[in-house]
Amino acid sequence: MFERLPPEVMIYEVGPRDGLQNESRLIPTPSKVQLINALSGTGLRAIEVTSFVNPKWIPQLADAVEVARQIDRVPGVAYSALVPNLKGLESAFAANMPEIAVFLSASESHNKKNVNKTIDETLEAFRETIPPALARGIKVRAYVSTVYGCPYEGAVDPNKAVQLCRDLRALGCYQISLGDTIGVANPLQVCDVLTRVLAENPIDTVAVHFHDTRGTALANILVSVEMGITTVDSALGGLGGCPYAPGASGNVATEDVIYMLHGMGVRTGVDLDALVACSELATSLVGHDVPSKYYHAAIGDRQRSRRHSSA
Amino acid sequence: MFERLPPEVMIYEVGPRDGLQNESRLIPTPSKVQLINALSGTGLRAIEVTSFVNPKWIPQLADAVEVARQIDRVPGVAYSALVPNLKGLESAFAANMPEIAVFLSASESHNKKNVNKTIDETLEAFRETIPPALARGIKVRAYVSTVYGCPYEGAVDPNKAVQLCRDLRALGCYQISLGDTIGVANPLQVCDVLTRVLAENPIDTVAVHFHDTRGTALANILVSVEMGITTVDSALGGLGGCPYAPGASGNVATEDVIYMLHGMGVRTGVDLDALVACSELATSLVGHDVPSKYYHAAIGDRQRSRRHSSA
Repeated sequence: MFERLPPEVMIYEVGPRDGLQNESRLIPTPSKVQLINALSGTGLRAIEVTSFVNPKWIPQLADAVEVARQIDRVPGVAYSALVPNLKGLESAFAANMPEIAVFLSASESHNKKNVNKTIDETLEAFRETIPPALARGIKVRAYVSTVYGCPYEGAVDPNKAVQLCRDLRALGCYQISLGDTIGVANPLQVCDVLTRVLAENPIDTVAVHFHDTRGTALANILVSVEMGITTVDSALGGLGGCPYAPGASGNVATEDVIYMLHGMGVRTGVDLDALVACSELATSLVGHDVPSKYYHAAIGDRQRSRRHSSA
Repeated sequence: MFERLPPEVMIYEVGPRDGLQNESRLIPTPSKVQLINALSGTGLRAIEVTSFVNPKWIPQLADAVEVARQIDRVPGVAYSALVPNLKGLESAFAANMPEIAVFLSASESHNKKNVNKTIDETLEAFRETIPPALARGIKVRAYVSTVYGCPYEGAVDPNKAVQLCRDLRALGCYQISLGDTIGVANPLQVCDVLTRVLAENPIDTVAVHFHDTRGTALANILVSVEMGITTVDSALGGLGGCPYAPGASGNVATEDVIYMLHGMGVRTGVDLDALVACSELATSLVGHDVPSKYYHAAIGDRQRSRRHSSA
C-alpha cells in the first residue's frame, strides 16, 4: 500500500503569500519580515514570500518588494514570489528573487475572472515573462488552479491539467503545482489526475496544492505521497481565507501535513515545534485564530503541561 | 491503489452520545429527541443515541432512558446506547434497546482512569453484562479506545488491540470499533493495526473510530476503507469536545466523511443536505459552532446562492 512512499517530502510553504493575501488586516512590513525570518529557521526549504501583483488588486501585498528585499536569505532555503506579468517580473528582478512562480487556471471561466485573459492568452503572456527570467538564472515554478473543480464551471476535465503541464514544462517551468483552489477534490480524483500527469512528467516536476475547504486536504495529500509525490504546498496554521467565516477556504495547514508525514516516517526537515511558534506569531499578526488542528492540539498540550508543572 | 475499496460503507453516527456527552450546556430531552429523529430521516442506518452511565459522572446524559424511550424507532435504523455496567444494562432493558455497546481501553492507565478497573477486571465485568444482553436478542458492539496512543502511557502496542478483539469476539460482540481516542494516529499506524486485526477477524466485525485532534482523521479513514473497512464511526458536525478550545478533540465529522466517500463513488445511503440540516440544528442546541469543514462550505454556498438569487 505504501510502496511508493518517498523517504523525504519537501514542504513548499505558501503562508506568507497565499495566506496573507487573504487577510483583511494590513500587516506591517517588519512583521511580515519577522514571520518569514522565523519560518526560515524551522528547517523549511522553500518559502513563497509574496506576490508582485498590482497593489490595486491586492493591497495586502503592496509592500512586496520591500518584504522580499528585507528578509534574511538563509542558505538552503528557496525564496520565491508570484509574478503575474512583466511589471511583476521587473519587481522580481529589483528584489533579486532566485525563484518566481507564474499561475493560470485549468478552467477558462476561473482564469478569465482571475487574470482577465483566456488560457491561451495567459500562456502567450508567459512567453514574455518566463524566458527573461530563465535567462537571468531564475527558476520558474507554475501553479495550475481549479484542477479538480471550478467555482463557475463545476467539474474540470482532468486532461486540462495534463495539457497545461506539457505547455508549462515546454516553457521551462521546473515544477508545476496542481491546485485544488476551491477544495473539492477527493482522493480518487487526485489519483486519476496524478496518474495521467505522472505518465509523462518526472515525479519532481509535479507538486500538489490542496485547500481544506471540505476537510479532504490531508487525505488527498496522503494519496499524492502514496503515489510518490515529493513536493507538497501548505500554509502555516492553515492560513488563507478567513477560517471561521462560512464557506471559508484555507490552505492545508503545514503543521497538520508535517505531523502526518513525520508519523509515517517521511522526513521533511522541519522542526514542528518551531513551526507552531511561527503560527503563534502569525495568529497575533493576523488578529484571529488559525484552523490548523495540530496547532491547537500542541498549544493545548503546552498549556496543560504548564498547569501541571505549576500545580 | 483502491482495489479493496468497498462499494458501500455504513456510517455509525455517534454524535448524540459521544458528541453531546462533552457539551457543557445541558440540552433538554425534547431537543435531543428532535435531533435523533432528524438524524433518523437522513438515511443513516446506525445511531448511538445515548449512554446509560451514572449521571454523577456525565450529567449531560442523565435523561438517557427518557431519550431512548421517546425517539421514533425508524425501521432499518439500528439504535444503540453505551452500557458501562449492570445498572446500565437494566436501563437498556427498560428502554428496550435493540443494541448496546460496551467499552474499554487498550492501555491500562487510560482504562483505569476511565472505568476504575484494570483491563482484565473490565473483561471480567463484561462476562456479567454481555451474556444477559445476548440472551435477550440484543446485539452487542464493543469500543476499544486508545488503540493508537494513550494520554498517560504514550505509544500503545498494536497487539493490545488484536488481543482485545479476540477477547471481545469470544464474548459475543458482533463488531469491535477501534478508537483513536486522543487523535494521534497516522495512516501507516492504521494500516499496521488493521493488517494485524483483519488477519484474524472478518471485515464486517471491525469498525474504525477516529478523532480529528491533529487533522489526520479523514486520511486515516481513507486508509481504512482502502483496506476494505465497511463501518466508520463519526459524529455530525464533528461534535465531541469543545471544538475551539485549545487542545479540543472532536470526532471526525460525519459530513466530511460522507463528502469524501460519495466523491469516491462509495455509497453510504445518507443524504448529505439532510445531514447538514441536522448539524445546523445541533449548533443551535449546543450553542456554538461545529468544526466540520464540509458543513461550513455547505452553509457558505447556500448563503452565497441566496444573495445571488435576491440580487
